[in-house]
Amino acid sequence: VLWIYVIGVASAAVSGVLAASRKRLDWFGASVVAIVTAVGGGTTRDLLLGQRPVFWVTDPSLVGIAFSAALGTIGFTRRYTVPRRALLWVDAVALGAFAVLGARVALEAGATPVMAVVLGAMTSVVGGVLRDLLCVEIPVLFRGEVYALAALAGAATYVALVLHTHADALASAAGTAVALTIRVIAILAKVRIPVVPHRDIEAA
Amino acid sequence: VLWIYVIGVASAAVSGVLAASRKRLDWFGASVVAIVTAVGGGTTRDLLLGQRPVFWVTDPSLVGIAFSAALGTIGFTRRYTVPRRALLWVDAVALGAFAVLGARVALEAGATPVMAVVLGAMTSVVGGVLRDLLCVEIPVLFRGEVYALAALAGAATYVALVLHTHADALASAAGTAVALTIRVIAILAKVRIPVVPHRDIEAA
Amino acid sequence: VLWIYVIGVASAAVSGVLAASRKRLDWFGASVVAIVTAVGGGTTRDLLLGQRPVFWVTDPSLVGIAFSAALGTIGFTRRYTVPRRALLWVDAVALGAFAVLGARVALEAGATPVMAVVLGAMTSVVGGVLRDLLCVEIPVLFRGEVYALAALAGAATYVALVLHTHADALASAAGTAVALTIRVIAILAKVRIPVVPHRDIEAA
Repeated sequence: VLWIYVIGVASAAVSGVLAASRKRLDWFGASVVAIVTAVGGGTTRDLLLGQRPVFWVTDPSLVGIAFSAALGTIGFTRRYTVPRRALLWVDAVALGAFAVLGARVALEAGATPVMAVVLGAMTSVVGGVLRDLLCVEIPVLFRGEVYALAALAGAATYVALVLHTHADALASAAGTAVALTIRVIAILAKVRIPVVPHRDIEAA
Repeated sequence: VLWIYVIGVASAAVSGVLAASRKRLDWFGASVVAIVTAVGGGTTRDLLLGQRPVFWVTDPSLVGIAFSAALGTIGFTRRYTVPRRALLWVDAVALGAFAVLGARVALEAGATPVMAVVLGAMTSVVGGVLRDLLCVEIPVLFRGEVYALAALAGAATYVALVLHTHADALASAAGTAVALTIRVIAILAKVRIPVVPHRDIEAA
Repeated sequence: VLWIYVIGVASAAVSGVLAASRKRLDWFGASVVAIVTAVGGGTTRDLLLGQRPVFWVTDPSLVGIAFSAALGTIGFTRRYTVPRRALLWVDAVALGAFAVLGARVALEAGATPVMAVVLGAMTSVVGGVLRDLLCVEIPVLFRGEVYALAALAGAATYVALVLHTHADALASAAGTAVALTIRVIAILAKVRIPVVPHRDIEAA
């Protein structure tokens, strides 16, 4: 299932270029934002786990794919409009696939099950947070989308199944499917996470 | 003195939720900001020292406490106003306690005394910087508060005493007290650090 | 050629103080921004490579130089205007020198040639990105300047030459010169990287 990661990295890179173009970044800056969006989650996971070096220093293929996807998107947007809706579906599949991948890496590195779930979800979503910070925007992850919760559910499904059945392929498929299903239902039913009420009227 | 860390993590988490609520984040995003505020300093310290994995991957208790404090705060703010003044005092105690804790971890990892002071202070204050960056605000740490300087003084007191007397409990108490005293005096006397004059009128 | 790093760290620190003064930071915050600007690139490189601890934990001299340069700049700007044009030239020399230094460290740590080029360029430019993020500005690196591309070219020149000739001094000089030349030509000829067109008119 390597192709699922290729698609996931490419869709993350596209979202990075789109965010960068809204802020009038140059094509080099947009490519950097695209690459950070694509590999930022796995990089953060590896740093926190103490994997060294981080994965893309020894295997630059995902960085290359992200860079290619960024250049392709920049060329594409000169003439066409990016089909946002299609991107949303591709991204939902990648969300689950990367959460499962991240949880597997964390378990193999000796993380506890709970932390493997957390680090799995981080693998999926931290790239987008870094993308928004580089563009000086409040992360869209924190603004109501059912996104990280779907990644957490997918990673938890994978970790629970793989620890009990030792069937990695089955657990991976189930974890990806759970994340995808939750994400798709949230999009279709327009479910959003409620905002925290702002009440601290006292002076700082 | 484990309770002092529990209180410190909880007060950091509360400040994270308050910052998030000002930016209209959802409850999940506010919880993430709260957890990052609580464990971001120690995480940065561990990454810079090369401790692997970072502390909360193997001991998730502080993350759990921060998450509980975040949910509690979100529930609390639905009905009540958070007593900012009380928070300020709790935070001043935690400021010193975490600076001492961070300096001890750094010394044990082989850092030089000067760097143990720096990494100790970072353990106390970096979480708040990350909180502000996630909320796309200029860090309050850089805007005049006598906060990091108190942490530096507390960590320096601890490092100097523990290296000369080898009495860890005494040095810890003294370091925490020094940081607390400086912070409290600065709050009461309204001492602020002067702003850097802005004079570069030449064009870039 | 230690002096080249001293000058580079100092010029990075000056740029940090100037950025901080535009945002009305206090002198402590400005010093922190200056130090992060100066050592942020090398720190990121070491974290990604898994060097532990990061370089300045065991050798605090560059942090000390950056802090001194920050305090000197703060004092200087109370009376005088910083000569921006001179800074630009000093910075162009440092750009190449740090790219070469970073590439050498990466090669010695076992990175592939391509990743050594990337990590070399990151050593030069990531400090400025962190400076802008701490000041809540979109990184100037992404806004049209021919800066990271010059660092990449310099690092690539160094890596290609040192792997083929094993003459480190020659390769270092050539790499620094290539980066400097590209940067200077771009400044003099006012070459800028084109902005990515913004076309996603569809609703998110």
